[in-house]
Amino acid sequence: MRVPGSPARAYGGRSSFESISRSAGDSHSLTPLQDLHGVVTPSSLHFERHHNGVPAIDPLRHRVLVHGLVARPLFFSVDDLQRLPSVSRLAFIECAGNSRDQWGAPHDRTVQELHGLTSTSEWTGAKLSTLLEAAGVTPEASWLLAEGSDAAGLTRSVPLTGEVLSEAIVCYGQNGEALRPEQGYPVRLLLPGFEGNINVKWLRRLKVGRAPFMTRWETAKYTDLMPDGTAYQFSLVMEAKSVITSPSGGQQLRPGFQEIRGLAWSGRGRIVSVEVTVDGGRSWRSAQLQEPVLSKCHTRFRWPWTWNGQETILQSRCVDQTGYRQPTREALIKVRGTHSSYHYNGIQSWKIERDGRVRNIHV
Amino acid sequence: MRVPGSPARAYGGRSSFESISRSAGDSHSLTPLQDLHGVVTPSSLHFERHHNGVPAIDPLRHRVLVHGLVARPLFFSVDDLQRLPSVSRLAFIECAGNSRDQWGAPHDRTVQELHGLTSTSEWTGAKLSTLLEAAGVTPEASWLLAEGSDAAGLTRSVPLTGEVLSEAIVCYGQNGEALRPEQGYPVRLLLPGFEGNINVKWLRRLKVGRAPFMTRWETAKYTDLMPDGTAYQFSLVMEAKSVITSPSGGQQLRPGFQEIRGLAWSGRGRIVSVEVTVDGGRSWRSAQLQEPVLSKCHTRFRWPWTWNGQETILQSRCVDQTGYRQPTREALIKVRGTHSSYHYNGIQSWKIERDGRVRNIHV
Repeated sequence: MRVPGSPARAYGGRSSFESISRSAGDSHSLTPLQDLHGVVTPSSLHFERHHNGVPAIDPLRHRVLVHGLVARPLFFSVDDLQRLPSVSRLAFIECAGNSRDQWGAPHDRTVQELHGLTSTSEWTGAKLSTLLEAAGVTPEASWLLAEGSDAAGLTRSVPLTGEVLSEAIVCYGQNGEALRPEQGYPVRLLLPGFEGNINVKWLRRLKVGRAPFMTRWETAKYTDLMPDGTAYQFSLVMEAKSVITSPSGGQQLRPGFQEIRGLAWSGRGRIVSVEVTVDGGRSWRSAQLQEPVLSKCHTRFRWPWTWNGQETILQSRCVDQTGYRQPTREALIKVRGTHSSYHYNGIQSWKIERDGRVRNIHV
Repeated sequence: MRVPGSPARAYGGRSSFESISRSAGDSHSLTPLQDLHGVVTPSSLHFERHHNGVPAIDPLRHRVLVHGLVARPLFFSVDDLQRLPSVSRLAFIECAGNSRDQWGAPHDRTVQELHGLTSTSEWTGAKLSTLLEAAGVTPEASWLLAEGSDAAGLTRSVPLTGEVLSEAIVCYGQNGEALRPEQGYPVRLLLPGFEGNINVKWLRRLKVGRAPFMTRWETAKYTDLMPDGTAYQFSLVMEAKSVITSPSGGQQLRPGFQEIRGLAWSGRGRIVSVEVTVDGGRSWRSAQLQEPVLSKCHTRFRWPWTWNGQETILQSRCVDQTGYRQPTREALIKVRGTHSSYHYNGIQSWKIERDGRVRNIHV
């Protein structure tokens, strides 16, 4: 208190004492769920997944083309998009491959390493339907090709359902400011509730058609290999899932009071309940949900617990507004087998050892 | 698309094409309201106001002392605070001096320069009441001294009303990660709805008493000088206010479609309506409010407009859940005079010139 502090800054950064990070590979990075609070993911810690790196795009030169089954093909500049009627909403995005390691034997990993390919932001942009109406979409339109301008040339087919038309956003804003480069700067598609990959980043083209386009990214990748060897395609919605983020893998507990904290979300709408067990499933208690509980958005849950120093197993399970219940790992595998890399949403089990160490296990 | 992009990063930053900034003085900086989307303010662009700079505090060495009228004085480390039951909520903070220039003659300024001392974050921490209960607060407790550990040694008196006890948070989290240094890292007080200055940053001490402590910051400063020369003290709540952020001062309009966008907020609870006029107050239309509308939180409003190229005046006015209506500048001055520097919440008028230039005026 004896020396004046630093002056104001044009654009702030975090304290030099803070070092929480996305654990980053070449083509992905994971949100540190165990270290975060509330439901908004800081943009600097939003997970990344890209298939040929993050392009550096000059927003003044960028255009989004709308063509195909439309009366008049149109180019939209970023400025054009920002002049259209706008909408904002909080929504999670989760990579279809999130939690994929859990299909196999349990690894001694953190919640970030196991489940960190999911994050929540407040997204802003123009409704997809506004662009389609401007271009004069024809009545037989039923699918849309969305193409990114990254070096992967990523393309996905989007079904033009009523829900997509009412909710999809062509985004330029994330958490109040411009999209971050790794989230698609300057323009991305947001399809709330759908697997991450189809929320096409660095969006450059929307082609309206009457059938799916069968791109590499929905044939060779992002399909679910079923027990009988067939591939289940266009399983786009991320089903309800919850995970306890504290205590979680790699943490070290002390006996005594310990608030159990976690996140739940569903691609089908709102979370209506989360239950927690601290005795490996013998008894379940309702966790408190942080208000407001929003559709297709991370929902924070909390439950007060006192650890008595004994070995035990913690789990959480959620129910969404459709009545869908998060399955056990066993029930999930009974239907889906273990060939898939995608859409794992089984109940997570954390073993608390007698010495307080927390480990990922399957029960 | 012909070259691979950048790899993943541990902690992201914005695009090099983005340069939006807080306009920073030595001891304050202003949120660029005209450039932001939705309701979450990016932490890097949250306004700042400090009275002797931003201290650099090692969180491992920091403590919060709770003493005074308590059964057992207690020190809380940051780790202690994070082990208590936690709460998160979105809330605005507005400096009492926001919009102060509007008490005088109209200056040709931007919305950032006029009204940029307000921002919204998702805040996380332990409830103040949890700390007080742990220390065994005595029944006669009715006021609290909150002290910061900055070089200003800022101290404020907080009334221990039921609303304060149910809503006040001793915060360590902002928008998912740790508080930013200029927002009080590692610990600040959050009193939702109260003027910014009393949300004491770099919090080090809470002393429980039975009367206000009459510190410099509530006697020499942060009182409202009334028309008769008396000072009105402890006018802590920020009353309802709204402002159109686009179009706004310094911008240049083109004729045609233009979405009117703005923010409204109230320290007393939820915003229930915002009306917009595009003809200087002859007719008013209900703006659309971005859902969810949250208590004591910025609320985004939008209204579609087509500018016909003629001179006109734009205004917005809001009503909060208590029925309070944002006053005209004239009505505000009739009660408050023009001696005060604080708590200005009159209706903002933007003049659109025939050439499309937007100017701050008083009507």
